Amino acid sequence: MKNNIYDKRNLSMMMDLYELTMAQGYFLGEDNRRRVAFDVFYRRNPDGGGFAVFAGLEQVLQYLTGMHFEDADIEYLRSLNLFDERFLAYLRDFRFTGDVYAFPEGTVMYPNEPVITIVADLVQAQVVETEILAQVNHQSLIATKAARIVYAAKGRAVSDFGARRAHNNDAAIYGARACYIGGVNGTATVSAGEYFGIPVGGTMAHSWVMFYGDELESFRKFARVYPDNCILLADTYNVLKSGVPNAITVFREMKEQGIQSKNYGIRLDSGDLAYLSIEARKMLNAAGFTDAKIVVSNSLDEFTIRSLLQQGAQIDSFGIGERMITARSEPVFGAVYKLCAVEEDGEMKPRIKISENIEKVTNPGLKEVYRAYDENGHSVADIIAKKDEDIAAVPYLVDPGKIWKKYDTAQFSFRKLQEMQLSGGERVHPAEDLQTIRARVRAQMDREVWDEEKRFENPHGHYLDMTPAYYEMKMNLLSAGGR
Amino acid sequence: MKNNIYDKRNLSMMMDLYELTMAQGYFLGEDNRRRVAFDVFYRRNPDGGGFAVFAGLEQVLQYLTGMHFEDADIEYLRSLNLFDERFLAYLRDFRFTGDVYAFPEGTVMYPNEPVITIVADLVQAQVVETEILAQVNHQSLIATKAARIVYAAKGRAVSDFGARRAHNNDAAIYGARACYIGGVNGTATVSAGEYFGIPVGGTMAHSWVMFYGDELESFRKFARVYPDNCILLADTYNVLKSGVPNAITVFREMKEQGIQSKNYGIRLDSGDLAYLSIEARKMLNAAGFTDAKIVVSNSLDEFTIRSLLQQGAQIDSFGIGERMITARSEPVFGAVYKLCAVEEDGEMKPRIKISENIEKVTNPGLKEVYRAYDENGHSVADIIAKKDEDIAAVPYLVDPGKIWKKYDTAQFSFRKLQEMQLSGGERVHPAEDLQTIRARVRAQMDREVWDEEKRFENPHGHYLDMTPAYYEMKMNLLSAGGR
Repeated sequence: MKNNIYDKRNLSMMMDLYELTMAQGYFLGEDNRRRVAFDVFYRRNPDGGGFAVFAGLEQVLQYLTGMHFEDADIEYLRSLNLFDERFLAYLRDFRFTGDVYAFPEGTVMYPNEPVITIVADLVQAQVVETEILAQVNHQSLIATKAARIVYAAKGRAVSDFGARRAHNNDAAIYGARACYIGGVNGTATVSAGEYFGIPVGGTMAHSWVMFYGDELESFRKFARVYPDNCILLADTYNVLKSGVPNAITVFREMKEQGIQSKNYGIRLDSGDLAYLSIEARKMLNAAGFTDAKIVVSNSLDEFTIRSLLQQGAQIDSFGIGERMITARSEPVFGAVYKLCAVEEDGEMKPRIKISENIEKVTNPGLKEVYRAYDENGHSVADIIAKKDEDIAAVPYLVDPGKIWKKYDTAQFSFRKLQEMQLSGGERVHPAEDLQTIRARVRAQMDREVWDEEKRFENPHGHYLDMTPAYYEMKMNLLSAGGR
Repeated sequence: MKNNIYDKRNLSMMMDLYELTMAQGYFLGEDNRRRVAFDVFYRRNPDGGGFAVFAGLEQVLQYLTGMHFEDADIEYLRSLNLFDERFLAYLRDFRFTGDVYAFPEGTVMYPNEPVITIVADLVQAQVVETEILAQVNHQSLIATKAARIVYAAKGRAVSDFGARRAHNNDAAIYGARACYIGGVNGTATVSAGEYFGIPVGGTMAHSWVMFYGDELESFRKFARVYPDNCILLADTYNVLKSGVPNAITVFREMKEQGIQSKNYGIRLDSGDLAYLSIEARKMLNAAGFTDAKIVVSNSLDEFTIRSLLQQGAQIDSFGIGERMITARSEPVFGAVYKLCAVEEDGEMKPRIKISENIEKVTNPGLKEVYRAYDENGHSVADIIAKKDEDIAAVPYLVDPGKIWKKYDTAQFSFRKLQEMQLSGGERVHPAEDLQTIRARVRAQMDREVWDEEKRFENPHGHYLDMTPAYYEMKMNLLSAGGR
């Protein structure tokens, strides 16, 4: 493995132009000495779901710690005739020296809570917006979709087969990473295996059968080269009349030759996968190949998987293509990057964005997010507190949607969700291993998240409560018109 | 500009594992001496549309001409315990030396016609599948979406604002390229400007207003730094009561100071854009600022743009975010890569993939695609011919869906669509300029493609006819069971 880092491009210019023009405005106005805080949060779970999976943090940290502008970048910016030489000189020496707080990657997350908070001088905090959002939006989108698909598969193997329909290389490769974080067992994408250590796998394509023309002969040739990974694609001509009988012939021949395959079976890539898998299973079993695997693929997602399993489909393993790698049913994760505090006279004063839409009003100020657990370890609510509050000393919690209710805190245990990731632009702990991140998702999905939040239709909405002190601060700011 | 090439990563390992395992099977079986042909084509236009725009070819050619495996790649493959040392040695010296034919990038394309044909030895042709498809699928998806959006905007400016919601860096940067090919005027994504020379633009974010707290003061500060690109974001607090009046105040002050701005106006990013733009237009006009621009953004696509314009919205420019950069309404472009011919005894013999679904039956053999034009230069049909046919000598054409009809060829003029791009792995002409590609789309969309194919609901389906000789060959192959 190449040091576990796939991407050595300098992505510092991956930003919206207005971030640079605003940054120059701040810089020339000498407002840049002031520190600000921006929160990254999202407003709605994809697919009407009850949760999302936070992914992409490691790439955000790599980006922030490596950020710099090269001569060619400066030259390009100069050519736009928008930038003052003083600002370009500033960019030439630019390094990100801010503080970054974030949920550990792989944490299950919910709407309207800050999963990342950037505290930095105004220009630094402004120019990093686009790349942070692009990474977090993409990887969280795919990790969430994968977690839903893995949940639907009820323990059966799930693999990412989507590279060819991904939105270009990064979407395939970081997408495979996000799928793995979300819980899939492996990927077909070789570079994702090479750079991230994700298990790679695959079967055969129709072109193998078509090249040889004779299906039986093509299966024999494959079995000769890959006796221990012998999943034969059975639908090039006719699954039940040709593909499965020919596969059985080859499995018999292997047996006669004394070959004990570690992994053998068939793949179905078209037709009615419920009917065909049930019939194929019967034929394989009747021939004595009860341990032959049935792998299926073809436009699958959590909904088609659930439907197939409800119909008794006989499937050991799912290969998932475009509907996972593009999150086809809802391909946009809407995390945003919003100013929440500005330094005034040495103090971080809260800022709020008012909106006609109540759900677009932001949560102001520096804050902490806590997750509350019941005595069984189930996560029952998340809580926003002021940065310096002692959550253990908070007498009760406020649900901002039902302010007449007060929740007693004594019944809960709490865990602080944001951890410091960068201090003055430097990492405060080493990069997390991908396995650790993946295991975090698995542990939370299996033990902390209620089934009521995992179901696909009308899931329970996770509570986001506030401490009384935080709620009061927000209300006071709203009453004052947000300024 | 950095030589117009954004991506210097070696993407040779961006493939599905089964391509490599099949390739090894071919290689060890000594089938690799045989040449094969694969066609890239798609089956259905996105969004139920009547056309698509072919994009991504330049990146495909860069990939193919640069393809090689590095020591670290070989080492990784060896670690999988799947590959024979002879095959790894072969990969170590691998270069792509095949022939590539393709439509010029930016050609309007239709289902089931080969937009790219790869003719190479079996292993070379097999291992390039995933990267070719990922590039073509992604860029064609976005270019097609952009062309639809530009068509809906009826000559108004359209810009790509989508980077933060793109599926990672490549999707943002190559996506901006594809949007530009599809006809948008520019992008907000700085690296897309730097690497591809796409015009970049932008306005201001809510954070600018929120940082200063006082909207009027924040507008003044912006106008001072950017008098010639002074688009003020008017919806942070209240568009009609605060944003527009404050903008008018600033425009008045600029006028009083004798500043003649080249580009000034407001941006609306929330609320009812039809109502607000009409009211804002009235207010700006009443104040004498009839040349102030109104820019709108917020979850726009071809459908919302059409609806806004039908309601008389007063809009000069559209900023398009997630719905273009992810092609949200249909985020998958389904181009496939199918074997169509195999060398046997020195001759390229056609191969066909049979399927229960008639639309999944492939078009076999080496072929040419011609576009037929009427006397006004409108494109009336595309035609598949055998590779060596003289289209001018073909007496009539067959519509495979209506075989009782015969179309006289005398009324048409023809253009061959595929051109040789690589010969023996080498480029046969220099890389095309992005402006040339973009102009090709524009010319075809404006002059060749019927409005009936451009409309969004039930568009006319472009005819794909065949020469009698090609049709007969395909039918004979089908009758013989495809083998």
